[in-house]
Amino acid sequence: MESCVFCEIVAGRAAASVVHGDDDVLAILDLHPATPGHVLVIPRTHVAGLAEAGDAVGGPIWRAARRVAAALRASGLRCEGVQLSLADGEAAGQEVFHLHLHVMPRFAGDGVVVAAEWRSPSRARLDQDAALIRAALPR
Amino acid sequence: MESCVFCEIVAGRAAASVVHGDDDVLAILDLHPATPGHVLVIPRTHVAGLAEAGDAVGGPIWRAARRVAAALRASGLRCEGVQLSLADGEAAGQEVFHLHLHVMPRFAGDGVVVAAEWRSPSRARLDQDAALIRAALPR
Repeated sequence: MESCVFCEIVAGRAAASVVHGDDDVLAILDLHPATPGHVLVIPRTHVAGLAEAGDAVGGPIWRAARRVAAALRASGLRCEGVQLSLADGEAAGQEVFHLHLHVMPRFAGDGVVVAAEWRSPSRARLDQDAALIRAALPR
Repeated sequence: MESCVFCEIVAGRAAASVVHGDDDVLAILDLHPATPGHVLVIPRTHVAGLAEAGDAVGGPIWRAARRVAAALRASGLRCEGVQLSLADGEAAGQEVFHLHLHVMPRFAGDGVVVAAEWRSPSRARLDQDAALIRAALPR
């Protein structure tokens, strides 16, 4: 397997600014934060994305994210809200192919912008899309 | 309590294009999708945000998000990647104050942009921020 920077951190062979660790996940500061205090929650076990991650790691990731979010709000760093974000695949903006959940402090005027061509489809179109998705749900 | 549009949907009193439902969560199409197939995973029980949500709902939310992500990739809708996103608080962009996780199809040229003033702080600064966050972690 190609060397993975997050696996190197989990193994203690690469530096990281750690904020939380437990049996399942590690939470570290992002080297290129969108806002100060931008944390990444990563499973200790290498998985590239959602498909490989399985269901069991969801609880530990969520628990760590909630703890980190509460800590950010109480840390003294500027934090008026918290944004969670996970990119699954290059088309979603994933750059490191070891699954990670971003936990970002947000505040008024923080310079973070999520822009999109927001649509307002008809209910008929939404129902049609929903039917396609339902039909493709894993059994 | 003020009327909550997601609680109305959960109760079956408001229309929604439903893609998945189980004991804990409901997954519905967003009325204003960033990309076609943009889903919201919402807990059936009303909670405003992460602080109120508790840890137990994390597993069900994650499981539903993974199933929906897999379905989006197999649905025939354009989906080359999937982005998960959760806004906790107005400063993070939350508009409906019933917790919801966005599950968005992403593809090349989809018009979705996440912009920020990306920083590159020193390790000393990162370690300092990490210490503040660690000190504020809930016991």
